[in-house]
Amino acid sequence: MRAWRYEGGFGAENLKLVELPEPSPGAGQAVVRVRACSLNYRDLAVMRGAYGSGVKPPLVPLSDGAGEVVAVGPGVKRVKPGDRVAAAFMQDWIEGTPDDLKANSALGGAIDGMMAEQVCLSAEGLVPFPEHLSFTEAAALPCAAVTAWHALFHCGGVKPGETVLLQGTGGVSTFALQFAKMAGARVIQTSSSDLKLERLRAMGADEVINYKTTPDWDKPVRKLTGGLGADHVVEVGGAGTLPTSSKAVRRAGHIALIGVLTGGGQFDPRLMMIKGVRLQGIFVGSRAMFEEMNRAIALAGMRPVVDRVFEFTELHEALRYMESGAHFGKICLRVD
Amino acid sequence: MRAWRYEGGFGAENLKLVELPEPSPGAGQAVVRVRACSLNYRDLAVMRGAYGSGVKPPLVPLSDGAGEVVAVGPGVKRVKPGDRVAAAFMQDWIEGTPDDLKANSALGGAIDGMMAEQVCLSAEGLVPFPEHLSFTEAAALPCAAVTAWHALFHCGGVKPGETVLLQGTGGVSTFALQFAKMAGARVIQTSSSDLKLERLRAMGADEVINYKTTPDWDKPVRKLTGGLGADHVVEVGGAGTLPTSSKAVRRAGHIALIGVLTGGGQFDPRLMMIKGVRLQGIFVGSRAMFEEMNRAIALAGMRPVVDRVFEFTELHEALRYMESGAHFGKICLRVD
Amino acid sequence: MRAWRYEGGFGAENLKLVELPEPSPGAGQAVVRVRACSLNYRDLAVMRGAYGSGVKPPLVPLSDGAGEVVAVGPGVKRVKPGDRVAAAFMQDWIEGTPDDLKANSALGGAIDGMMAEQVCLSAEGLVPFPEHLSFTEAAALPCAAVTAWHALFHCGGVKPGETVLLQGTGGVSTFALQFAKMAGARVIQTSSSDLKLERLRAMGADEVINYKTTPDWDKPVRKLTGGLGADHVVEVGGAGTLPTSSKAVRRAGHIALIGVLTGGGQFDPRLMMIKGVRLQGIFVGSRAMFEEMNRAIALAGMRPVVDRVFEFTELHEALRYMESGAHFGKICLRVD
Amino acid sequence: MRAWRYEGGFGAENLKLVELPEPSPGAGQAVVRVRACSLNYRDLAVMRGAYGSGVKPPLVPLSDGAGEVVAVGPGVKRVKPGDRVAAAFMQDWIEGTPDDLKANSALGGAIDGMMAEQVCLSAEGLVPFPEHLSFTEAAALPCAAVTAWHALFHCGGVKPGETVLLQGTGGVSTFALQFAKMAGARVIQTSSSDLKLERLRAMGADEVINYKTTPDWDKPVRKLTGGLGADHVVEVGGAGTLPTSSKAVRRAGHIALIGVLTGGGQFDPRLMMIKGVRLQGIFVGSRAMFEEMNRAIALAGMRPVVDRVFEFTELHEALRYMESGAHFGKICLRVD
Repeated sequence: MRAWRYEGGFGAENLKLVELPEPSPGAGQAVVRVRACSLNYRDLAVMRGAYGSGVKPPLVPLSDGAGEVVAVGPGVKRVKPGDRVAAAFMQDWIEGTPDDLKANSALGGAIDGMMAEQVCLSAEGLVPFPEHLSFTEAAALPCAAVTAWHALFHCGGVKPGETVLLQGTGGVSTFALQFAKMAGARVIQTSSSDLKLERLRAMGADEVINYKTTPDWDKPVRKLTGGLGADHVVEVGGAGTLPTSSKAVRRAGHIALIGVLTGGGQFDPRLMMIKGVRLQGIFVGSRAMFEEMNRAIALAGMRPVVDRVFEFTELHEALRYMESGAHFGKICLRVD
Repeated sequence: MRAWRYEGGFGAENLKLVELPEPSPGAGQAVVRVRACSLNYRDLAVMRGAYGSGVKPPLVPLSDGAGEVVAVGPGVKRVKPGDRVAAAFMQDWIEGTPDDLKANSALGGAIDGMMAEQVCLSAEGLVPFPEHLSFTEAAALPCAAVTAWHALFHCGGVKPGETVLLQGTGGVSTFALQFAKMAGARVIQTSSSDLKLERLRAMGADEVINYKTTPDWDKPVRKLTGGLGADHVVEVGGAGTLPTSSKAVRRAGHIALIGVLTGGGQFDPRLMMIKGVRLQGIFVGSRAMFEEMNRAIALAGMRPVVDRVFEFTELHEALRYMESGAHFGKICLRVD
Repeated sequence: MRAWRYEGGFGAENLKLVELPEPSPGAGQAVVRVRACSLNYRDLAVMRGAYGSGVKPPLVPLSDGAGEVVAVGPGVKRVKPGDRVAAAFMQDWIEGTPDDLKANSALGGAIDGMMAEQVCLSAEGLVPFPEHLSFTEAAALPCAAVTAWHALFHCGGVKPGETVLLQGTGGVSTFALQFAKMAGARVIQTSSSDLKLERLRAMGADEVINYKTTPDWDKPVRKLTGGLGADHVVEVGGAGTLPTSSKAVRRAGHIALIGVLTGGGQFDPRLMMIKGVRLQGIFVGSRAMFEEMNRAIALAGMRPVVDRVFEFTELHEALRYMESGAHFGKICLRVD
Repeated sequence: MRAWRYEGGFGAENLKLVELPEPSPGAGQAVVRVRACSLNYRDLAVMRGAYGSGVKPPLVPLSDGAGEVVAVGPGVKRVKPGDRVAAAFMQDWIEGTPDDLKANSALGGAIDGMMAEQVCLSAEGLVPFPEHLSFTEAAALPCAAVTAWHALFHCGGVKPGETVLLQGTGGVSTFALQFAKMAGARVIQTSSSDLKLERLRAMGADEVINYKTTPDWDKPVRKLTGGLGADHVVEVGGAGTLPTSSKAVRRAGHIALIGVLTGGGQFDPRLMMIKGVRLQGIFVGSRAMFEEMNRAIALAGMRPVVDRVFEFTELHEALRYMESGAHFGKICLRVD
């Protein structure tokens, strides 16, 4: 079977299509024939070798994939051959609070990922997905959608009528838009492109702001909220956007710290203290969160926003496309 | 100015239309020209003299009303003449947890209520309502809608995809249906009338059950939830329905105990213990809950379900109509 | 190896000392040489055949036991031979919220229990206990102590200065006394015996009430709390005591519903609704709760209250002693 | 009556002892004869004119004071002459979540403070204090103690056995030590002085670290917690210490961001994201928090740590002493 793998080092130059032996399931395991994968910014960090000292080649990349169970090992009750499943980002974070053991079970990082024709995983790490979704759509869920769900509903407890401020049009932000609207919240969303802002509006964003033409976008946010600020901010930029987010969030509000797209800068925490703001680091989520999210997606008939689907052999092209930042929603790969 | 008042005792026979002096506002107070009121089951309990020893005639009845501010006393900044406002059920429960002082400030119970052409209240107890609502619609909110909001979002923390079980078509249950759907939840609702079930479906109820033809309605609820049971039950029946609700709710689920329509019976708590169920008594809510609910209603453009509007002089007819149980949603009264 | 087992039916007459083959550990399993067990009221319910239709003989009884790991199967990393461990009440409830699968893994109920010289369990179900505890003391923890911990800290969120009302001197109530005092709370505790009340005071109870001479013990509770009522009630009586507990708890207070010692009666939920009380069913707890409790016990150097230790062969005597209700704290059994 | 006041500008040179007219209470107000005050770092920031644009001279300084009610205005039921009371830091934050209105009612900042022989305040802003405390001890509570209480119990939900990391020996940190031990937690505390570390140990600190001789104090913290890190960090240093605190806190742990003693620096939030840390800004707390804290202090018979008591006329000396950082606990002033 074919798989992509970092061989001998990270960097695009070491990411190669290789032939690996077909896996067979041990006790408690299942073999999944992967049908689709998707990319996250995190996969760029892995490629750059910037994803922590615990992550080493040889490594099959990508956390996000979905497929069909083709074989199960002894004692497996959770899935059976023919089941359509996605894989949980952290294979060992079933539920409860995260710990080091759970964190060290992330696909395409601590352990081999999904960018292979077949993967062999613990049955406990597999998650059936809503029937109305294609494999491609299901492959969009494990990292970005679970992250957005975790931020809005586990950390944020978003209620109808509350205001959620979203940044950009990446995977997390488009899922957050869909989930926030599903929950009756009001969404204010930023982008650098008026075209993308149009699309956000069409998807339900209540208010949109071009952060290029309005670099102090905290001002319109406060104005749109009667001077109070947003109840929740899903912060995907990191240190570069946190200062503005701190001004845009309301007193005693909530900032879900998800990404560090703007790089590894620094920020002054004083405003957070005075305003009594809660800054909550979010690192994807548990299988239990994935399952309850799926229930909501099924009920709403929601479909992930898939920007573009590359072929299995086009992984390099797909990663370069992500680097360009031109996408809106998820970048997927077909595996078959 | 005219007002309805219990004179010399409770009971329909003592509920009389009387002439009272026009109020003028003291420091911190506002006079509201009432434009509409609405009824709750609680108003029947007050009429029957069954609402506790602290409630005594002479008493102007009804907790629920909305109108226009016509005068304010010294020091009032919260409202001004011309403002369209509803009154908070408990005038002194601004926010935080309830206590005896707050509980002893309920309109139409501990203190005079809204069924008068003018009322004089603390400005702190008034709540501006969404612009798109008429006075009649606003008068539907203070008791039933705040109760449903409190149950679903403060006690229940309802998330998209969760299942909410609702009973009947009274004020609380129709508001709960609207709020639960607004929040992306799945609603299973019961009624004794197929016609009412049709209306519930039209309003968005995902599944409906006729509890007359299906007295063990916990069975379809469990079946519809993959054997698990509902995540939340908004219990308006009390001891008569709690045993079935206990079977219908999931392990570690949540029952909001709101009403005791089925009377003062008893129930065996063992099942609640074994299943780890949380039974949360709900007694309306705070002004802060009312305000955040209004924000959600405004965003969604939601309108309360008003069954019928009586004239100011028809209070007896309106109360008898509520006793009949024929209504679907709220019973209101025009005041002008 | 010897074990106690219900053979052919429940009832004391069917509870027999039998010889069973020594277990050997499969993958992921560990064999524990049991050194001590303890009793809970639940074990009386099992003996009476009143513990649900899923519980069937032949059955080794008792949920609570501690011992030494003597062998581990392939893949076990959590424990090693020589480790001193107790067993989690529900072997499959590791963390998170309870569900049917987890509930159906209770020792001495759904599956064979601890009253054997050796038991073979999943390594995931074993919990190392604080060093300062003997096997007998550790055997006192799994059911009663975890239940008390769950009630006070997971459901109750007890804070220093809050008032906790405890009933009687059984295992749960004595652990709850120790934990509540450890957390800086004020304890009011009831018993029918002045001698036991003395002992409770010596253990730190701030106020004690003889419920035999003061059957309306809600009155002194309200008096001792400035008329407000207790913040938390750990309700072990059930329907027989709930009406008085409902009067003794404060508005918006919390009743942890743990036991039904007073039998299967009924109660009127109206007072709970009006006062906005939260009645939370508690069914033991997760392994994660057990572990965090152990950390607190170790820090405080706390020791369970062991009333009496019977020999392995004296199970019948121990169960009869529990039935007498004469105990104060836990009844244990030596196994070796 | 005498009062200290900033006249014409901030800075020590403008802080003057002046004669002001004796206040008399309006409706809802009470006049308090102040008997003691205490200092906080915030009072240094006010002196430096670095406390925000809303704070302007003339201003009576200091948020913290306690005294005796000497007169009440019409309608006051909450206090009566002779009552011993402290003042709430934010006079209008009674309960619930903070907002701008509440924040703009801080004594010695937005409005005149307590450093006067008499003050006239809303009766709602006064808080009776535990009987066993002197006026000096009570004057130590409003800012630092309420902040520590808020951080540990409202944001942290500290449970017995959890580890709390504290920094230094200022007011917040010594109160946090006392409260954390009261709640059964384990305390690790830092200081630059071995003498102070000895005193912390004598007060109950379980482990102490000299951060001068151990600048990477996150290492011993992780070692002392089995490699996990502290459950809670009460961060009083700000940007200068946050990077080390981020390493010292456990995955999914909690950092209460209280002070910015190390100045207005910046920090890199990436570690917080990956570890799923919650950084909660804390700005003192509500009157309701003050009251529940007092209940705990009364139950425990706890006494604030008062480092030194200056005379009313020695305000400049007291402020200089605070600047020196030599203190351990609170710096108070006698007023009479």
